[in-house]
Amino acid sequence: MTLLVALDLMGIFVFALSGATLAVQQRMDAFGVVFLASVAALGGGVARDVLLDIAPAALDDTRYLVAPLVAGTLVFFFSPLVERLAGAVRLFDAAGLGLFVAAGTGKALDAGLGAVPAVALGCLTGIGGGVLRDLLAGVVPVVLRREVYAVPALLGGAVVVVLDGQGRSGPVVLLGAAGLVFALRMLGVWQDWHAPVAPQRRRQV
Amino acid sequence: MTLLVALDLMGIFVFALSGATLAVQQRMDAFGVVFLASVAALGGGVARDVLLDIAPAALDDTRYLVAPLVAGTLVFFFSPLVERLAGAVRLFDAAGLGLFVAAGTGKALDAGLGAVPAVALGCLTGIGGGVLRDLLAGVVPVVLRREVYAVPALLGGAVVVVLDGQGRSGPVVLLGAAGLVFALRMLGVWQDWHAPVAPQRRRQV
Amino acid sequence: MTLLVALDLMGIFVFALSGATLAVQQRMDAFGVVFLASVAALGGGVARDVLLDIAPAALDDTRYLVAPLVAGTLVFFFSPLVERLAGAVRLFDAAGLGLFVAAGTGKALDAGLGAVPAVALGCLTGIGGGVLRDLLAGVVPVVLRREVYAVPALLGGAVVVVLDGQGRSGPVVLLGAAGLVFALRMLGVWQDWHAPVAPQRRRQV
Repeated sequence: MTLLVALDLMGIFVFALSGATLAVQQRMDAFGVVFLASVAALGGGVARDVLLDIAPAALDDTRYLVAPLVAGTLVFFFSPLVERLAGAVRLFDAAGLGLFVAAGTGKALDAGLGAVPAVALGCLTGIGGGVLRDLLAGVVPVVLRREVYAVPALLGGAVVVVLDGQGRSGPVVLLGAAGLVFALRMLGVWQDWHAPVAPQRRRQV
Repeated sequence: MTLLVALDLMGIFVFALSGATLAVQQRMDAFGVVFLASVAALGGGVARDVLLDIAPAALDDTRYLVAPLVAGTLVFFFSPLVERLAGAVRLFDAAGLGLFVAAGTGKALDAGLGAVPAVALGCLTGIGGGVLRDLLAGVVPVVLRREVYAVPALLGGAVVVVLDGQGRSGPVVLLGAAGLVFALRMLGVWQDWHAPVAPQRRRQV
Repeated sequence: MTLLVALDLMGIFVFALSGATLAVQQRMDAFGVVFLASVAALGGGVARDVLLDIAPAALDDTRYLVAPLVAGTLVFFFSPLVERLAGAVRLFDAAGLGLFVAAGTGKALDAGLGAVPAVALGCLTGIGGGVLRDLLAGVVPVVLRREVYAVPALLGGAVVVVLDGQGRSGPVVLLGAAGLVFALRMLGVWQDWHAPVAPQRRRQV
């Protein structure tokens, strides 16, 4: 198992937890839970592979389909526990964001993309599944909420690209970038950071 | 005309009827009706072809574009009749689901996919167009409602894969699997079957 | 820079303006503005390139990613001005529609598609980004509103195909078709044209 596959599977598992938890919150049934888990988990990576014109790993490797099934089943049966963990969707989402941005940027560089498109594709990998998850569940996509979400992803992708330019890549770089994204995102949630809105539209809070 | 093309065209026509009927119910105009018919009809198959990295049939074969146009026009002009057929959206949707799951699973096996990914892709083919249709029309996607929707699709795909493993494929297998999906789905609607929700979230009904 | 690239970049810029303006109207933050600008600007063209199985230009050419960034930043800082220009979203959207339909139909013909699929793909190029923009912003997709939106696109695509059949293509044809789409669309908005709804569903106005 290569590192990129391991990162992908970890990202899939935590994103699937986020999708399944949201589905339980929205009182969906068992299949809705597994479906939303799969969409959240696989959406970003499949979009990336389609854009890179490589065969989506999810169609080649049964583990990519089993991971969301396991995560969905776990959340379904232990949902009272998961619910007590307040902010579980956000926590899993932040972990998935980090893992997918790092893995996605790495895969884009491997495919020969330049710096800017590689960061953009890494961010799409990280954000895509969550956007689909939120659209299907009928909630405002997390990336469009007034929270700091895109900045950690952009920084994480940039770190991977810059270090790659210096000849440094591999497990430590990718896991480090993933951890950086996760830490910044959770720090933003914890500190209630907000990105600015356009001038003269800012409301009294 | 090969069998897979015939099944595809039948599925396109009935899914287009479902999209057009929903559009009329939502009081969309003539072009909204044809647009929603086309999205419902072509969404799942195009997604499947893109994932399999084969040229989408809809771009090659004018019949794939004419079918939703005809279905949309029919529903547009005969909508009072269609409306009196209560549950028409569901009926056409169930027929399209069966035809697309069978055709999609068959096409995935032809492309050399393994058992689990082939069933998953067959289900995506069957579910994708309806999800897009419902998202665009602003209603909760049918697969996420508390109805038995995914189970018939999964069983239909599994039947195609198992019989293919025994060397049996062809018209009878695919039409039989499509009929099985349709029958189970309509039985679920008729009997008002519900899939379970997560423990301790079940509401008093 | 070829003409198709120039048309693409112009379409990207004006669609990005439409996405950014909508995001400011919905009080999204700075990153939401850039994200919605990028989705509106790149969604249609990327979908077209994926369907044609050619490498999406947005991954190859940094200008495709810089254009929505610039447009989003402009709208973000000058939004009070943009807001005063009533109907700015619609104006930019109509310009983007024209440019993308013309460029998309031309690219589809270049890729060897037949007349009907080329027009369909041109319309998808023109409509796709706006549909994604509206879905993410939680408003009814413009193509499904009771306005004349699809007809200009279809006519513009048809003009490109017919003239191509007569051996005429190139800058004048494409820019002329783009102008025709824009003019028809804005005329429809100005004259408050409505497409018909299905018989016996028409409401008293």
